[in-house]
Amino acid sequence: MRNPTAAMLVIGDEILSGRTRDSNLWYLAGELTRAGISLTEARVVGDDTAAIVAAVRALSAACDYVFTSGGIGPTHDDITADAVAEALGVGISLRADAMDLLGTHYQRQGLPFNEARQRMARIPDGAELIDNPISVAPGFILKNVHVMAGVPTIFEAMLSSVLPRLTGGAPLLSQSLRVMRGEGEIADDFGRLAAEFPDLSMGSYPFQQNGAFGTNLVIRGTDPAQLDAAMLRLVSLFG
Amino acid sequence: MRNPTAAMLVIGDEILSGRTRDSNLWYLAGELTRAGISLTEARVVGDDTAAIVAAVRALSAACDYVFTSGGIGPTHDDITADAVAEALGVGISLRADAMDLLGTHYQRQGLPFNEARQRMARIPDGAELIDNPISVAPGFILKNVHVMAGVPTIFEAMLSSVLPRLTGGAPLLSQSLRVMRGEGEIADDFGRLAAEFPDLSMGSYPFQQNGAFGTNLVIRGTDPAQLDAAMLRLVSLFG
Repeated sequence: MRNPTAAMLVIGDEILSGRTRDSNLWYLAGELTRAGISLTEARVVGDDTAAIVAAVRALSAACDYVFTSGGIGPTHDDITADAVAEALGVGISLRADAMDLLGTHYQRQGLPFNEARQRMARIPDGAELIDNPISVAPGFILKNVHVMAGVPTIFEAMLSSVLPRLTGGAPLLSQSLRVMRGEGEIADDFGRLAAEFPDLSMGSYPFQQNGAFGTNLVIRGTDPAQLDAAMLRLVSLFG
Repeated sequence: MRNPTAAMLVIGDEILSGRTRDSNLWYLAGELTRAGISLTEARVVGDDTAAIVAAVRALSAACDYVFTSGGIGPTHDDITADAVAEALGVGISLRADAMDLLGTHYQRQGLPFNEARQRMARIPDGAELIDNPISVAPGFILKNVHVMAGVPTIFEAMLSSVLPRLTGGAPLLSQSLRVMRGEGEIADDFGRLAAEFPDLSMGSYPFQQNGAFGTNLVIRGTDPAQLDAAMLRLVSLFG
């Protein structure tokens, strides 16, 4: 049985301009791997409705789960909720439960619940809210699309409440061997070994240390017994 | 006149599994911004021919320039060159000039120029080589697609030899103002200011410091005079 698949969509001009280095993709990748969900694609688009709509449609159709980050704040460039509603063909409006959450929060803080802040209660019809324990403004789940904040601490908190409810598969395990030989030297044998274990994925990652070439050989798979068998062969070849 | 557009394609299972945190996208984004080329989309796919072919076709058709990273080494999972050739409908074979480069390099190092290492001389028909000053195995340019290594030092070196030859536009400039107010408080005025300057792009990036909310307001554009005018207005609103 194959593991469920997922895609990530990172939204924000600040990533594409180089102002901000995204960390959410890397974080999500690790969490999904542990949960037994295969991240098969990621995309980054700017704060542009047409680009977000096209990406959400493509990824939502291709994968079991989609995760987005960014563009759900109060400012004019926060257009993710509207774009996701458009992509999945549903309406969007200020929703009572989200208005309540945010209204209570700002009242407690003694801050005006102005029009900009109310924008964060715009939720597509039929979506389920995702709790935001840090700054209250919720994310949401619409069909298979999980819309979350771009600020890493909030993204991570939202993911932690969403992930346990998803159906995962067997966690993707990995073992690795570090050898002080260049990739080109081990490639033939390593390729033959990979062909012997079609259910495992084997990758090699070169590095340089004090002017010498080395390679990290990584074996990934969901079956611990196969992984051990392949690792034994790997060590006997290059250990 | 609009600036030329670019897309990035990051290739590698290690990024999607969370083993490796990509840094090439962030590096490329900054370099393109300085060169006046607009990065409009990025994608990450695994070591999978169908996924690479589909992404290269889509991005090559949508943008003026495409940059790829990863998958050009000697091992069985290095399939980028073959996939790019397939995507753009050309043949691929061991090429004499790349064979010469690599053969001389390994001879000098006293290492066998074996079949795996020869794989790195597989270059699509009609491509132009990109110099690799670090480990010799070349990248290549085929049509508007620039195929480069995934190892960050090599990616950066290859980009530095490619970038000066591309036609850029006006560099994207940015100015920012840090205010100790929440996004929701400045959003209305900030949105109106953004509407007044349709040629500029304005973004707001919230942060927390010692429990207080603050926002970085960023204005981006190519016309220094407009940028200065908008910045003056921004300071008078929130400074």
